[in-house]
Amino acid sequence: MKRNVLIIGAGGVAQVAAHKCAQHNDVLGDIHIASRTLAKCEAIIASVQAKGSLKVPGVLQAHQVDAMDSAAVAALIRRTGAQIVINLGSAFVNMSVLEACIDTGVAYMDTAIHEDPLKVCETPPWYANHEWKRRQRCADAGVTAILGVGFDPGVVNAYARLAEDRFCDTIASIDIIDINAGSHGRYFATNFDPEINFREFTGTVYSWQNGQWQTHRMFEVSQTWDLPVVGAQKAYLTGHDELHSLSARYPHADLRFWMGFGDHYINVFTVLKNLGLLSEQPVKTAEGLEVVPLKVVKAVLPDPASLAPTYTGKTCIGDWVKGTKNGQPVEVFIYNVADHAQAYAEVGSQAISYTAGVPPVAAALLIAEGTWDARTMVNVEELDPAPFLRLMDRMGLPTRVRDAQGDRPWDA
Amino acid sequence: MKRNVLIIGAGGVAQVAAHKCAQHNDVLGDIHIASRTLAKCEAIIASVQAKGSLKVPGVLQAHQVDAMDSAAVAALIRRTGAQIVINLGSAFVNMSVLEACIDTGVAYMDTAIHEDPLKVCETPPWYANHEWKRRQRCADAGVTAILGVGFDPGVVNAYARLAEDRFCDTIASIDIIDINAGSHGRYFATNFDPEINFREFTGTVYSWQNGQWQTHRMFEVSQTWDLPVVGAQKAYLTGHDELHSLSARYPHADLRFWMGFGDHYINVFTVLKNLGLLSEQPVKTAEGLEVVPLKVVKAVLPDPASLAPTYTGKTCIGDWVKGTKNGQPVEVFIYNVADHAQAYAEVGSQAISYTAGVPPVAAALLIAEGTWDARTMVNVEELDPAPFLRLMDRMGLPTRVRDAQGDRPWDA
Repeated sequence: MKRNVLIIGAGGVAQVAAHKCAQHNDVLGDIHIASRTLAKCEAIIASVQAKGSLKVPGVLQAHQVDAMDSAAVAALIRRTGAQIVINLGSAFVNMSVLEACIDTGVAYMDTAIHEDPLKVCETPPWYANHEWKRRQRCADAGVTAILGVGFDPGVVNAYARLAEDRFCDTIASIDIIDINAGSHGRYFATNFDPEINFREFTGTVYSWQNGQWQTHRMFEVSQTWDLPVVGAQKAYLTGHDELHSLSARYPHADLRFWMGFGDHYINVFTVLKNLGLLSEQPVKTAEGLEVVPLKVVKAVLPDPASLAPTYTGKTCIGDWVKGTKNGQPVEVFIYNVADHAQAYAEVGSQAISYTAGVPPVAAALLIAEGTWDARTMVNVEELDPAPFLRLMDRMGLPTRVRDAQGDRPWDA
Repeated sequence: MKRNVLIIGAGGVAQVAAHKCAQHNDVLGDIHIASRTLAKCEAIIASVQAKGSLKVPGVLQAHQVDAMDSAAVAALIRRTGAQIVINLGSAFVNMSVLEACIDTGVAYMDTAIHEDPLKVCETPPWYANHEWKRRQRCADAGVTAILGVGFDPGVVNAYARLAEDRFCDTIASIDIIDINAGSHGRYFATNFDPEINFREFTGTVYSWQNGQWQTHRMFEVSQTWDLPVVGAQKAYLTGHDELHSLSARYPHADLRFWMGFGDHYINVFTVLKNLGLLSEQPVKTAEGLEVVPLKVVKAVLPDPASLAPTYTGKTCIGDWVKGTKNGQPVEVFIYNVADHAQAYAEVGSQAISYTAGVPPVAAALLIAEGTWDARTMVNVEELDPAPFLRLMDRMGLPTRVRDAQGDRPWDA
């Protein structure tokens, strides 16, 4: 049994995770939230208290920490007695937080690949650049580190494994499709940190096809998918974290990630990118001030958290898997549909944050009870998906499958 | 006779003016160029020398000055013995340079209305906010100050006066049309300082119609004009300096300014404006850095001067005047067509800079010989246009007219 959770970060996803941890604090124990800005942690705690999310009376505390400072994070872990760290801070802090977990021997989770502020789109597979270099040290220290356990990456990796376990003997292709069919009603906004959001789309688009990495430019390849609930949706081949671990487990399958974008988003993105305003490299103004253009774009865009109250519509994210079963071709779509307004009513965040924030708490529960306490570094597809998906069915993110036999709950 | 010219500013327009002054230094005397950045003045001098533009051997000197500092400008005027100042610096420095001219009793010219860095689009008529408040002091000191003597404002004001003098007994409307049908071959660029360029289009669009100021938004009203050489061109009702003086002389006429824009320009502009990236008000980044978004946009856009070498195509700028002559309705288009490549070959700048930089030098020649040495503050329509247009016919900016009698040189 591991107990007591430390959440690093205080954005929209951390808010969801805090609510969900509170809803299960009988199992998880004390809940601590730490970020650079104490007031943001305190706002989350106020939200948890306002919704009465704590299942049983218990500790719920805010802390100030610079998560780039490993020693400071380690000290906080020791001070709080946390045995499970859910890292939902900026992707820039992942390795310093992981180092603190290795140092203190506690479990680590994140939801995105580590990023170097000055590099966009490093050599694939991306996990080999930072995370997997520390795998042996996790194993040696008996430290559980579950990488990328949000929705995508995370749940979609579990969906791939579910396809392998239940629906296919051989897998020919996995197309991961991420559609936000919701509307925030603003001229333009990103659904999470614009800096991270845009960085996803400015570099080379890697996909794994024919046993090797293929490269494209963003918005070069599109396909329209006919999906449950949200209908026909145009999505674009996009570089994304999960391909960089799934390619190790499914080297003979074609692995692609597709993200839905409206024409308006693409137009705004294209203008900003072509002008150089999405660059992470500083420019100098006529007055001699050094500025990173992307940080200025972030400053003028709406705070993603501010979109939640009026967000309407649904998301649909899933794995479209083709392969064979008993020698016959099979095709299955394993997916979740989430609702923006419903997520806001429950935890005060929209569905993009909700789908990313619930899975690490489900994983924390599985670590706490030992089922997923791997005592080494793993990606989600290396773990048994059944208990994870079963937990999420009850936590607000039910999984369904659609295939030749119809559309139904995955575990029916 | 006034002699010796001091050019303030070292951008593309200043480069044209320096070449043109050099071509007439037998009349104008010494030529001095001053800006915040000495190297930019020296580059212009090198260009003038490389083209052999000096008509007779003479003084051609670079100076460093902060043009916001009136006393420093006055000291430079005294030190150089300049009796004519051509102010081609940023519109923010106009009043400090004018004050230096009043202080030293020398002639002043500019090509754009003074702007306050923190205000966009002040109360009309704009000239009354800063310039005209100093008219009496110019008259008292006997200082010639010719406001807005570039192409537009400037030559188009002279065209209005020419219509009054030669083509119309009554004027019903003056539509000033500014079309750049050239191509710079870049994804996006502005033809002069992006900061000034965008400020023109972010505020209220004022026009003078039915005897009062009318307000519109940018790109709200468009009209396609069939023009000589460049053909049919879509142009948009735009706020512009010249309407703010012409409305005093022609209060009973409808006065409108139309600028041509391609759909691509409008799209980029609209995205930047709607995101708040054209704001002159500082924003704060997540890291706490205060930045004016517009200055960052300026920093990432191509330097307008860098466009000149490959710029092709033509500009067409003129006044479409309707009125009556001898009781009959008349309609006349008075215009100039300039060629980007031809301008670059002569003076190393494209046609936008060329059309703005030649007129103040023609005006300087008229001040030097006394014809336009008004010894008070004037807008261009208050002066006899004939000697000005005749000079420009020989200096590279010939004027033509098109009416029921055909298309011909204005003075034929």
